[in-house]
Amino acid sequence: MFTKDALDNLILSKRTVLCVGLDTDPAKIPAHITGTIRQRVMEFNTSIIKATHKYCIAYKINTAFYEAMGAEGWQILFHTAEYIKSHHSQHFLIADAKRGDIGNTAERYAKAFYDEMPFDAITLSPYMGIDTVEPFIRRGKFAIVLALTSNTGSSDFQLQPMDDGKPLYQKVLEKFSAKFGKDEIMFVTGATHGTIVKTVRSLVPNHYLLIPGVGVQGGDYLTTLSNALNESGAGVFINSSREILYASSYEDFDVAAAVAASKYNF
Amino acid sequence: MFTKDALDNLILSKRTVLCVGLDTDPAKIPAHITGTIRQRVMEFNTSIIKATHKYCIAYKINTAFYEAMGAEGWQILFHTAEYIKSHHSQHFLIADAKRGDIGNTAERYAKAFYDEMPFDAITLSPYMGIDTVEPFIRRGKFAIVLALTSNTGSSDFQLQPMDDGKPLYQKVLEKFSAKFGKDEIMFVTGATHGTIVKTVRSLVPNHYLLIPGVGVQGGDYLTTLSNALNESGAGVFINSSREILYASSYEDFDVAAAVAASKYNF
Repeated sequence: MFTKDALDNLILSKRTVLCVGLDTDPAKIPAHITGTIRQRVMEFNTSIIKATHKYCIAYKINTAFYEAMGAEGWQILFHTAEYIKSHHSQHFLIADAKRGDIGNTAERYAKAFYDEMPFDAITLSPYMGIDTVEPFIRRGKFAIVLALTSNTGSSDFQLQPMDDGKPLYQKVLEKFSAKFGKDEIMFVTGATHGTIVKTVRSLVPNHYLLIPGVGVQGGDYLTTLSNALNESGAGVFINSSREILYASSYEDFDVAAAVAASKYNF
Repeated sequence: MFTKDALDNLILSKRTVLCVGLDTDPAKIPAHITGTIRQRVMEFNTSIIKATHKYCIAYKINTAFYEAMGAEGWQILFHTAEYIKSHHSQHFLIADAKRGDIGNTAERYAKAFYDEMPFDAITLSPYMGIDTVEPFIRRGKFAIVLALTSNTGSSDFQLQPMDDGKPLYQKVLEKFSAKFGKDEIMFVTGATHGTIVKTVRSLVPNHYLLIPGVGVQGGDYLTTLSNALNESGAGVFINSSREILYASSYEDFDVAAAVAASKYNF
């Protein structure tokens, strides 16, 4: 069971804030791995996990990639989550699902990700409001609320000023952090916005930040890290997916993934 | 393949705007239906569909309820969607999934719902911006963007004024309707906000509205309908889930569902 302080200690002892994103695209699995889609994805995922677990503190599974695998996709998602929790229970396991719906529906999503599967956290959209996040608040679990995302579309609404002049993403940070504590929620903040990460850190000094957008999407790792660390020198997950998963498309893909992951040690 | 005009004609010929929401909760399936979870849900769903298809023009499948069914849930979702499209191809089939993510991930969700499964439309959160909706724009398919939802949390952000005094949901309507036409997107507007539906209709006169919140959630059907109709006397889906699915918990559940659905005829 995770708390903010336990996660801080984990980061300080392993000297990394790396979260490996398992956005597995069957078309990018090295050609020497053969079999059914389920066999191929599981062999690829378990090899990546074996190779990288020493160099990361968290795994993030992007549900979209599994839903796109067809009728079997949800089972492959289940097996990947179960593999991680049964072999590496000290790793924080995030469902990158970006769900968000009214109460009775949100309860179903919480059941799916917390009870049917062993996730420690799930990403959620704030658009529908605070009551849609409440069903995901449980002891030892974290709701990870989107604040400022890494894509260009973040300027369409998130960066637009509200009537008090503050951008929408700041209103999201304010309202959610006023309602939920550091052991209940975290916030997504994209690395592609430069020093805005520093602003986010000052607005929510105690909450964890999950930061995508480093690497392929253009965010700089060390700058982002120095802007995002909390007072304890932790408080952040920096996610990397494609750079690690597809570091090599040959038989050395797992070794290449380990090397790519180890570069995030500080 | 659906267009705005074809949907208008369908509504005017069937004299209903009813969308039946298949939010199937295994715990609420009548006790006389026995077997594995897959057998029970499929027997319940197909019975509801057989009983109601004459009285509705659309089905909406809420993905949360299927994800909560465990590892098999995604396959039950597949089979339900395939059953509807193979038996009732004239019905508009909506995935109520409320997804929303950056480009390469959004493409995966589009693959899951449009290619792997035969959905005509998917509900999406606008929070991450216009570029996250673009991968769902395809000829004959519709992205259904959340504007104003039916829950109390809609006042947290959606109803908050932006710097020009207009609430966020109006900015969502403006930006998306300026970018995407009536044959590309629709908008979700909850029935629980009274005359605001009328405001939404005036802001997007040509786009379809998907309206939840009638019945159990408190919205009045006829008032909502009169506020939401477009110039052709159509342009809207009104969704009902629990009132129809659970009209009876005994062996007559399908007859009771048909009667409940038929009340929406106008």
